[in-house]
Amino acid sequence: MVPVVIDFQTHPDRYRHWRLRFEDRVARLDMDVDPDGGLGSDYELKLNSYDLSVDIELADAVQRLRFEHPEVGAVVIGSLKERVFCAGANIGMLASASHPLKVNFCKFTNETRSSIEDATKYSGQRYISAINGTAAGGGYELALATDYIMLIDDGSASVALPEVPLLAVLPGTGGLTRLVDKRFVRRDRADVFCTVEEGIKGARALDWNLVDELVSGSAFEEEVVERAAEMAAASDRPNDVDGVELTELERRFGDDQIEYSDVTVEIDRAAKVATITVNGPDEPAPTDAAAAASLGADFWPLRLARELDDAILHLRNNELGVGTFLLHSRGSLEAVVEYDRFLGAHSEDWFVREVLLMWKRVLKRVDLTSRTVITLVEPNSCFGGFLAELVLASDRGYMFEGTLEGEEATATLFLTESNTGPLPMSNDLTRLETRFWGDGAGLERALKAVGATLTADQAYEAALVTEIFDEIDWDDELRMIIEERSSFSPDALTGMEANLRFAGPETLETKIFGRLTAWQNWVFQRPNASGETGALRRYGTGLRPDYDTRRV
Amino acid sequence: MVPVVIDFQTHPDRYRHWRLRFEDRVARLDMDVDPDGGLGSDYELKLNSYDLSVDIELADAVQRLRFEHPEVGAVVIGSLKERVFCAGANIGMLASASHPLKVNFCKFTNETRSSIEDATKYSGQRYISAINGTAAGGGYELALATDYIMLIDDGSASVALPEVPLLAVLPGTGGLTRLVDKRFVRRDRADVFCTVEEGIKGARALDWNLVDELVSGSAFEEEVVERAAEMAAASDRPNDVDGVELTELERRFGDDQIEYSDVTVEIDRAAKVATITVNGPDEPAPTDAAAAASLGADFWPLRLARELDDAILHLRNNELGVGTFLLHSRGSLEAVVEYDRFLGAHSEDWFVREVLLMWKRVLKRVDLTSRTVITLVEPNSCFGGFLAELVLASDRGYMFEGTLEGEEATATLFLTESNTGPLPMSNDLTRLETRFWGDGAGLERALKAVGATLTADQAYEAALVTEIFDEIDWDDELRMIIEERSSFSPDALTGMEANLRFAGPETLETKIFGRLTAWQNWVFQRPNASGETGALRRYGTGLRPDYDTRRV
Repeated sequence: MVPVVIDFQTHPDRYRHWRLRFEDRVARLDMDVDPDGGLGSDYELKLNSYDLSVDIELADAVQRLRFEHPEVGAVVIGSLKERVFCAGANIGMLASASHPLKVNFCKFTNETRSSIEDATKYSGQRYISAINGTAAGGGYELALATDYIMLIDDGSASVALPEVPLLAVLPGTGGLTRLVDKRFVRRDRADVFCTVEEGIKGARALDWNLVDELVSGSAFEEEVVERAAEMAAASDRPNDVDGVELTELERRFGDDQIEYSDVTVEIDRAAKVATITVNGPDEPAPTDAAAAASLGADFWPLRLARELDDAILHLRNNELGVGTFLLHSRGSLEAVVEYDRFLGAHSEDWFVREVLLMWKRVLKRVDLTSRTVITLVEPNSCFGGFLAELVLASDRGYMFEGTLEGEEATATLFLTESNTGPLPMSNDLTRLETRFWGDGAGLERALKAVGATLTADQAYEAALVTEIFDEIDWDDELRMIIEERSSFSPDALTGMEANLRFAGPETLETKIFGRLTAWQNWVFQRPNASGETGALRRYGTGLRPDYDTRRV
Repeated sequence: MVPVVIDFQTHPDRYRHWRLRFEDRVARLDMDVDPDGGLGSDYELKLNSYDLSVDIELADAVQRLRFEHPEVGAVVIGSLKERVFCAGANIGMLASASHPLKVNFCKFTNETRSSIEDATKYSGQRYISAINGTAAGGGYELALATDYIMLIDDGSASVALPEVPLLAVLPGTGGLTRLVDKRFVRRDRADVFCTVEEGIKGARALDWNLVDELVSGSAFEEEVVERAAEMAAASDRPNDVDGVELTELERRFGDDQIEYSDVTVEIDRAAKVATITVNGPDEPAPTDAAAAASLGADFWPLRLARELDDAILHLRNNELGVGTFLLHSRGSLEAVVEYDRFLGAHSEDWFVREVLLMWKRVLKRVDLTSRTVITLVEPNSCFGGFLAELVLASDRGYMFEGTLEGEEATATLFLTESNTGPLPMSNDLTRLETRFWGDGAGLERALKAVGATLTADQAYEAALVTEIFDEIDWDDELRMIIEERSSFSPDALTGMEANLRFAGPETLETKIFGRLTAWQNWVFQRPNASGETGALRRYGTGLRPDYDTRRV
C-alpha cells in the first residue's frame, strides 16, 4: 500500500478551512483557515493564508455547489477572520516547498480559480467576493477570479498584490493577467498597484476598477446579502429539483496501481509510465434527464469524469517520476456513443449540463498536465464522442490496424458533435480546430468523419491519429516510442508540450497557464526568490533579501 | 573609457560570417561562419553554428538591405558550407554562457528573426531559405523565419529541431511557435519532429509542411534563382532610385555616458539607472520624400531611431546592473510634430516607409526590453507623434505640472495619427489600444486628444500619463519612485513587466517573446540543461546527461 501523500478527495464534513452554509438560493463559503491544518508541519497557516490543503477544500466546495445544489445561483466567498479576508499563499510553505511542489500547487490553485470563472460563466452560479479586510496576494487573486468584488470601506481594508516588493515572486495565480485582461486595469496603474506593498483601499480601489463596489462597514453584510440575492434570482438554475450528491469515490490503492470503478491506473516507475484505462458503461444510457439525475454519482459519464480527474491529480502530485501517461479505453464503442448522444440531446438540463462542463474541465486538466500523453486506440477500445477527445488531447495518438490474431474485433474511433463544440480547450477552440489550426481543408476532412465508425485507415486518413501499426509492429513500435520519451529531459518535454499543445488564439486562461505560469516558474527558480538569501527565505527573519541586481 | 563588450554596429566590409552579393533585384546572403570569429574564445563556431557575433551581422545585413537596396525585392539566405546550411546556436557557447547572456542572446536572435518577417510582410523584401544540407536547431528556426523554404533533395539534406532530445532545451528561437502557429504543422507531427534527433528530409518534410519546395540537387541553384527572381519581380519596391547608406553612427563612449548626435545616455550604476535623452530636430522637416532620402542617414527620424536602437542594445547587453531606463526628450515639440506629419504624409514612399518601419521595430525593442521604462515629460521636452509612443511604451509616465521657477515653458504632449495605427506593438494593437484594452470609453477619450497640445492636466485627464507632479514634488517623488524600483528583485520586475505590458490578443510574436521565451528561460535554469551533468555541459563529452527525472 503506497501512502497517498496528497489526496484530493474531501467532504464539507471534514473541511478544516472553510465553512459552507446556505441562505435560500445563495451559498456562503467562508474561509476560516485552521493554522495547524496545513499539509506541512513546518509552517502555520495564519491570517487565512493557504497551502494546497486549503485549495483542495475550495475545489471540492466549488464542485459540490454545482452538483449538489441546483438551487444555488450565487456564491459569496467571505472570511470568518476579523479584518482579514485572505493573506494569500503561505510564505513559509512557499519558502520550504520543492520546485515541483510549488509548481503543482500553483497549477491546481489556478485550475480551481478557472473553475470558479467557469461556474459563473456557464453554470449559472455567480461568484462574489465579500472582502471584509486585507486581501493580499493570492487572497486578492482569489477575489479576481470571482465575478463581483465587494470591499468594505472601513478605512483599513485593502486589496494588494505585494508579491514583487515583498517576496520577489509574481502574483502568479492569475493576478497579473486578470488585472489587465479581465478587469482592464491600465498597465501603468497595474504596475503601481503591484509595487505598493500595503495595497490600495477605498475610493481609489474602486476608481482603478480593482473592486466593483465599496460598502460602508455597517451596511456590508446587508449589501452582500442583497447583491447575492439579486444575482441568484437571475440564475437559470432550477430551484425545484434535488441535487446530485457526489458520493465518495470507490478507490483501491495498491503498490503500483489504483482501481476505481471505471478507471484503472497501473504505474511502472522503472519505465516512468502510468497506464490509465477508462471503461465504457455497463448499462445502457438512461431514457431521460431525470433518470440520469436519479442515478446520481453513479451516472457513468459523471463517475468516470470524477475518477479520471482524481487519477490525474493523484499522478501529478504523488508520482513525479511518471513522465508519460498511456491512455487506453475498454468497452462498447456503441454504448459510449449512445451516452454521448444522450448528453448532447439533454445538454439543456441542469445536471447533464454539469456533467458536460465537468468533462470540459477534466479534459482541460489533461491538456494542462505536464506529462506526455499518448492515447492508444485498440481493438475493444471505446473512444467515441467525448471519450474521443482523449485521443485529440494527447500529444500523440496511435491506432491498431487490423485484428489481433484469432480475434475479430478491430480498433475503431467515432467522432460526434461532442467533438465539434461543447468541450473547448483553454484557447476556446475545439481540439479539432486546434489540431487543424490554419488548415481549413484538414478540418473539413475531419468534420466529414463525424458520425462514422472509423477504421485505423480512415482515422489516419482524417489525420486524427499520429500513426497506425499492425499487430506485427504494434508492441515494438510503442515500446521504442515510450522508451525514447522516457530518455528525454522532463523539463524540455514540459516546455515543448506547453508550446505545441495550444496553437491559435490565446485567452485569459492560456495566458495564465502559458505565459504567466512560465514566468512564475522561472522566477521560482531564481536565487533572488528561492535562494538562501532570497526574499522567500528571508521573509519574516528581519533580514533584507540580498539580490543579484543584474537584469536578465 | 568603458570597454564596449558587445558592439551591435558592423558593416559588410567587416563581416566575418556572412557574404552579401547581389544579382539584379535579388540579394544573396550566404552564411559562412568563421569558426574562430565568435565573441568567446572557449568555443569554435563549426558547421555554421552561431553565437551573437553571427547574429549581429545578420541583423545588420537585414537592416542595410532595407535601406541601402531599394531595388532588392527578394533575399535568399543560403550557406557556403558544403552540405550544411546551419547547425544552430553553438552548443559550447550555450554551455558556458551565463544565464543573462543566454537570455539576451535569445532575445536578440528572436528580434532579428521577427525583423526578417517584418521585411517580408511590410517592406516588399521576401526572404527565401535555400537549404543545401543540414538545417538543425537554430538553423532550421532561421529558415522558419523566412517566407519560403527550399530544401535540396539529395537523400541526406534535412531539417531538424533536435534541442529536446540532444540538449534538453527548447527550440526557443521561435521554433516551437512557428511550427504550429505559422506553418500550421499538426501538433502530434510537431511533437514527433521535435524529438527526432536526425530530423526529417525529402518528401516527408514537404508533406508535413516543414518546407515549401523540394528540389533535386542538380537543379537546386537554378530553381533558387528562378524562385527568387519571381518574388523580386512581384515586389513593390522601386527599382530606379538610390539607396540610403547607413553610415557609421557617431558615438562617444565615456566612463558612464554615451554621446550620440541625437541621443545621450548617462549611466548611474550605483542608482542602477540609465537616463536616456533624445533630442528633437535641428532642421525643419524636408519638403518632399526625395529631399528626405537625399539627407540619407542624417534624416533626423532615421538618425534618432538608429541611435536609440543602438543605445538600448548597448545597455541591455553591457549594463546588466542598470534596472531602470529614464526617458527624457529635449527640443521643439512643434518641430517634432512637423516631422511626424511629414512621415505620415509620405508613408507610401519607400524610404519614409522604411523609417516608419524602423521606428516600429525600435519601439517594439523598448516594449521587449526587460528593464523598467519610465518616461518623463517635462518643460522643453518634445514627446509628439512617434516620439509620444515612448511615453505609451513605458511602464510609467510622469509629467511636470506648471512651470519651472523663473521660466515660461510648460510640459506638453502631442498625439498624432502616428499614435493610432502605423506603429503597432507585437500584439498588433497600437499602444493606445493596449493601454485602454477593454475600456472603450477611455480609448475614445484619448483619441479625442489627438491633434491637441496637451498640458499636464489634460494628459492626465486623458489617462496618458500615470501621475503629474508640480515643481515642489517633482524631484522628491521621482527620487522615491526610482529608489523604490531599484530595491526590488530584478527577476520579479522582469516577470511582472512581461505580463503587464501586453494586454489583449496574442500573436506569433507575443507568443514567442512571452510564452516560449519564458519557458526557455525556465528550462535554461534547470540542472537537466545547464547543470554540471546536464545535457548542455555533457554534449560532446561522450557522457550521457544525468537527468532528474521528476516532472515539474
